[in-house]
Amino acid sequence: MSALIIINPNSSQTVTDGIDAAVAPLRSFGTPIRCLTLAEGPPGIESQKQADLTVAPMLKLAAEQADAAGYVIACFGDPGLHALRDQTHLPVVGIQEAAVMTALTLGQRFGVIAIMPGSIPRHLRAFGAMSVLDRLAGDRALGLGVADLADPDRSLAAMIATGKRLRDEDGAHVLIMGCAGMAHYRPTLETETGLPVVEPCQAATAMVLGHIALGQSHRRDQN
Amino acid sequence: MSALIIINPNSSQTVTDGIDAAVAPLRSFGTPIRCLTLAEGPPGIESQKQADLTVAPMLKLAAEQADAAGYVIACFGDPGLHALRDQTHLPVVGIQEAAVMTALTLGQRFGVIAIMPGSIPRHLRAFGAMSVLDRLAGDRALGLGVADLADPDRSLAAMIATGKRLRDEDGAHVLIMGCAGMAHYRPTLETETGLPVVEPCQAATAMVLGHIALGQSHRRDQN
Amino acid sequence: MSALIIINPNSSQTVTDGIDAAVAPLRSFGTPIRCLTLAEGPPGIESQKQADLTVAPMLKLAAEQADAAGYVIACFGDPGLHALRDQTHLPVVGIQEAAVMTALTLGQRFGVIAIMPGSIPRHLRAFGAMSVLDRLAGDRALGLGVADLADPDRSLAAMIATGKRLRDEDGAHVLIMGCAGMAHYRPTLETETGLPVVEPCQAATAMVLGHIALGQSHRRDQN
Amino acid sequence: MSALIIINPNSSQTVTDGIDAAVAPLRSFGTPIRCLTLAEGPPGIESQKQADLTVAPMLKLAAEQADAAGYVIACFGDPGLHALRDQTHLPVVGIQEAAVMTALTLGQRFGVIAIMPGSIPRHLRAFGAMSVLDRLAGDRALGLGVADLADPDRSLAAMIATGKRLRDEDGAHVLIMGCAGMAHYRPTLETETGLPVVEPCQAATAMVLGHIALGQSHRRDQN
Amino acid sequence: MSALIIINPNSSQTVTDGIDAAVAPLRSFGTPIRCLTLAEGPPGIESQKQADLTVAPMLKLAAEQADAAGYVIACFGDPGLHALRDQTHLPVVGIQEAAVMTALTLGQRFGVIAIMPGSIPRHLRAFGAMSVLDRLAGDRALGLGVADLADPDRSLAAMIATGKRLRDEDGAHVLIMGCAGMAHYRPTLETETGLPVVEPCQAATAMVLGHIALGQSHRRDQN
Amino acid sequence: MSALIIINPNSSQTVTDGIDAAVAPLRSFGTPIRCLTLAEGPPGIESQKQADLTVAPMLKLAAEQADAAGYVIACFGDPGLHALRDQTHLPVVGIQEAAVMTALTLGQRFGVIAIMPGSIPRHLRAFGAMSVLDRLAGDRALGLGVADLADPDRSLAAMIATGKRLRDEDGAHVLIMGCAGMAHYRPTLETETGLPVVEPCQAATAMVLGHIALGQSHRRDQN
Repeated sequence: MSALIIINPNSSQTVTDGIDAAVAPLRSFGTPIRCLTLAEGPPGIESQKQADLTVAPMLKLAAEQADAAGYVIACFGDPGLHALRDQTHLPVVGIQEAAVMTALTLGQRFGVIAIMPGSIPRHLRAFGAMSVLDRLAGDRALGLGVADLADPDRSLAAMIATGKRLRDEDGAHVLIMGCAGMAHYRPTLETETGLPVVEPCQAATAMVLGHIALGQSHRRDQN
Repeated sequence: MSALIIINPNSSQTVTDGIDAAVAPLRSFGTPIRCLTLAEGPPGIESQKQADLTVAPMLKLAAEQADAAGYVIACFGDPGLHALRDQTHLPVVGIQEAAVMTALTLGQRFGVIAIMPGSIPRHLRAFGAMSVLDRLAGDRALGLGVADLADPDRSLAAMIATGKRLRDEDGAHVLIMGCAGMAHYRPTLETETGLPVVEPCQAATAMVLGHIALGQSHRRDQN
Repeated sequence: MSALIIINPNSSQTVTDGIDAAVAPLRSFGTPIRCLTLAEGPPGIESQKQADLTVAPMLKLAAEQADAAGYVIACFGDPGLHALRDQTHLPVVGIQEAAVMTALTLGQRFGVIAIMPGSIPRHLRAFGAMSVLDRLAGDRALGLGVADLADPDRSLAAMIATGKRLRDEDGAHVLIMGCAGMAHYRPTLETETGLPVVEPCQAATAMVLGHIALGQSHRRDQN
Repeated sequence: MSALIIINPNSSQTVTDGIDAAVAPLRSFGTPIRCLTLAEGPPGIESQKQADLTVAPMLKLAAEQADAAGYVIACFGDPGLHALRDQTHLPVVGIQEAAVMTALTLGQRFGVIAIMPGSIPRHLRAFGAMSVLDRLAGDRALGLGVADLADPDRSLAAMIATGKRLRDEDGAHVLIMGCAGMAHYRPTLETETGLPVVEPCQAATAMVLGHIALGQSHRRDQN
Repeated sequence: MSALIIINPNSSQTVTDGIDAAVAPLRSFGTPIRCLTLAEGPPGIESQKQADLTVAPMLKLAAEQADAAGYVIACFGDPGLHALRDQTHLPVVGIQEAAVMTALTLGQRFGVIAIMPGSIPRHLRAFGAMSVLDRLAGDRALGLGVADLADPDRSLAAMIATGKRLRDEDGAHVLIMGCAGMAHYRPTLETETGLPVVEPCQAATAMVLGHIALGQSHRRDQN
Repeated sequence: MSALIIINPNSSQTVTDGIDAAVAPLRSFGTPIRCLTLAEGPPGIESQKQADLTVAPMLKLAAEQADAAGYVIACFGDPGLHALRDQTHLPVVGIQEAAVMTALTLGQRFGVIAIMPGSIPRHLRAFGAMSVLDRLAGDRALGLGVADLADPDRSLAAMIATGKRLRDEDGAHVLIMGCAGMAHYRPTLETETGLPVVEPCQAATAMVLGHIALGQSHRRDQN
């Protein structure tokens, strides 16, 4: 039986494990889900350069999955999304675009919690390419150093504080977590902010499972 | 076991039957799906006035479904979408918004096949409210009279011709069927135009099943 | 002699009286103006559900006015605006759209004073449907509880404070009062903020009187 | 009694006479209306250079009207609109902006009938400055030479043909006449196209009479 | 040998001298650069009225430069830009548009440092006409009185403070100095804010020198 | 003396030679210009996948140029633009973004001549990321097969025909050649269409030479 392939383009197995846990509620839909770690990726993707350099090995890894029914690229930034659509006729969804499209059904203006400030220009380019900037309330970084990011309590506290600023100062009605592998924070973040929170790997997986069931895909030569 | 409730706000059982068939591939996801016809609705919804007048009985019908796990409002125009979100904490998706959000993951510019020309201003207002006009290639009506619309061959031929105009003159990369209950035309339309085609009831059902599985919903007091 | 009909879709006669006083300076234009209260409406409209449910009785009330020369729907949110345009060939103007179109001739960016925070997503959808979001400076709620709203002094103080925030933090050059029936606060609000203030019932009435004099109306089948 | 001053910034008395006739239905509103011809203007304004050069004498002429209650600048292009707002605290409306704001209450997408193709970039800049481009269906020139423009029958025929193209090819729901002094064509144009038609001098005059009655004006130091 | 003509439309020779110094690094490109002061201009341009009134003498001064190879209009606000393009087939660039187009290659969102708050609505209209509002982070005035503006230390301090607010509160990735003649502050402003800073006279001069070398110009009858 | 490095990311020396000839008029600016061919690139870049796969070798080639003063990435699509900005503090300009920014100073709406229809979605994403879609008149492909593209006469004829359609049907006021290495067609294309034509390698080179002279660059950690 063919499977949905989720590729984590960084090399951190912990992140892949987090993604695997995040999509557990969607396994009941019937399609097997397999989460892969890109060995050639960096431990974390923090720049456009790092993102672009994952595309070649990611395309290779994707092509090797003979039983693929569809793909999710599990990095907020969707590196190689359109390249993979050039390569395969199977449905491909990026977690960033899926998170946005899902958020747009849950609230009028969305706020994004970015891990690092340097990611925000990339996000803005992507939201511009999607033409959804009029529904962006704000995109704010956690403002943590590397040491603090390694501390779960500080990370969660910073996410909550950032979510509240997006809600109160920027007017967000729904939040998007701008990273993969942190779905376990979603319930607390929803409770603390009182807003719906979209975890992008979950959103993308749900969407591509729908595409698979409905036989829905892009056109390879014009994507 | 709770069920997804799809409400067809017009009174045509044939349309409801078409919706029921359209979403069949999604029954394997596990959640029961129940399609209801709004007895108080008009045979077809052709104006904003008709759309607005379905809201009161639709809200009542929705409230009566004690086992509801979520709702789809199955009229392109999404009448009562936000009113139902005011009434329930369960996930609610409109077929128009879901069709657009799904199409945006399948092609850069979407074209809409409208049944009647008088619907186009309503569509444009909705796309404006969603802030997705920059990705709209065009919205074109079939240009058929009532008699021709009753003839399946002429309807399909007009859909194909309209889809080709949207592709060739307007530059659409993905098509949306601007109506409910015609999912059986989707495969032929895809083959003839060579473009992905989104059937809105399918798109909305897939999306809300994802919301249900993930425990994802809007905030009632700010939707 | 035919008359302009202003329909307050909530059931508060006090609000209707406030509207009647607000449009007094426009009676000299020659067309009689008649302000009606919708008995079937709620005391105040605070949700999309409440707004949608006023449409059916509002359309009936409108149809009963045999001497109508045109209509204003006097609820910020414009419930039933396009439905009434489907029903009549007479000019129909909503106070929300008229307030925006008028404000756009008085300043580059407009700020909106909302009564309740839950109204803001509705406003944003409406401004999106009008495609005027690029000129929106901000939309802020008074932040008062029900008890405080009943106190005129606190209401006015909150309006002034909110107007100043829209001016100073959001860069508004003109303000819109996001409600009907409070025109008596307009002069003080203008003085205190130093900005032009648009009262939406006044704006809509002036606009529809122009439409009536010029024989200007919409097209019923494509509105 | 103070009067509304309409300034035609070209030197053609025929155009001024046309404007005077166009606004006749609005004289019943009570405020006297006086139409002035700018002697220093060119016979017709066909370029941005010509438009800009009318500003200095127009401002002088405006300042000389001691009994002014408000102003309309009656050239599609609104030359000197914000300069006059810098000079006076009285309400000032340009016919281009008023035509657009009025059209936006009469149909979802507006089409503009331009006299000369060279005007279209100026129109687009103005619509961009107003941030209303998402509601522009199209802007098309008559395609007539100077000789044909002098022939009323050919002008009217070209207007009708252009209006029909805007309706059928561009999807306009309301038309704007992109010139002053041709209000007498409006009824025929409405009948032939079946669309509402906005004559900009009428729209601006109605709007500024509302501003005058309501004591509504801009802020001089931030307009 | 023909020369690039830079016209400062205000009458302050000090400003012209500042422009002359600002463009010194571009003299090595080979084309002579001549900076002119508009004697008929005001000492500084603070309103749209003042800006509009410079157009007639500016056009005359431009026409007198027999050896012109191209023009820069050196006032942030670009008065007479399109009028001069109507008058000449030579390349003409305004410093405001050039600053924006240059900034868009240096960062995703640009912030503007305005001298006076009253200029901001003019800026917003111009950015709207350019259709670049989605990339504007913010436009903030220095908040200095006339006396403080005359004090270089206070001006520079206010510029730095304003730049930091644009960076930190508005999310600017690149700054534009919204005035001519202050290029000497650019290095300090870049160091203090850590952001790229665009000085508009430099940007426009670089751009028009490119146009001249490449034989690139606008079309006079449709600009 | 340091040099501007132009990298052609495809492996066709003919294209590189064309670029070298195109920028000849800019050698007089004083900075040496060196054009490099990316040996690892495909003969031509026709898909996002091909574009993405050039990034790794392009970054390496760029890093090897010890005397670089700045870079131009000479593929319409700007592959690796932001990755290279992550890697270097020197100015980097992509030919697509530079062509657009230059065109915006030459006409109100720009039209793009694409070589292949499959490139258009990529262009639209890029224009969306730049937020300039409101100024796009149209993007049309030549409609030639590979054999015809190899024939200079047929290519030029198709470019002229496409340019005329962009001018006449889409309303373009300036054209952009959506490819590198064809600057020799620019004069004929300008003559035949009567519109300004921007050749993207020329535009980018002019722009980056300005950046180099002015010491203007991006911020590496937030680009």
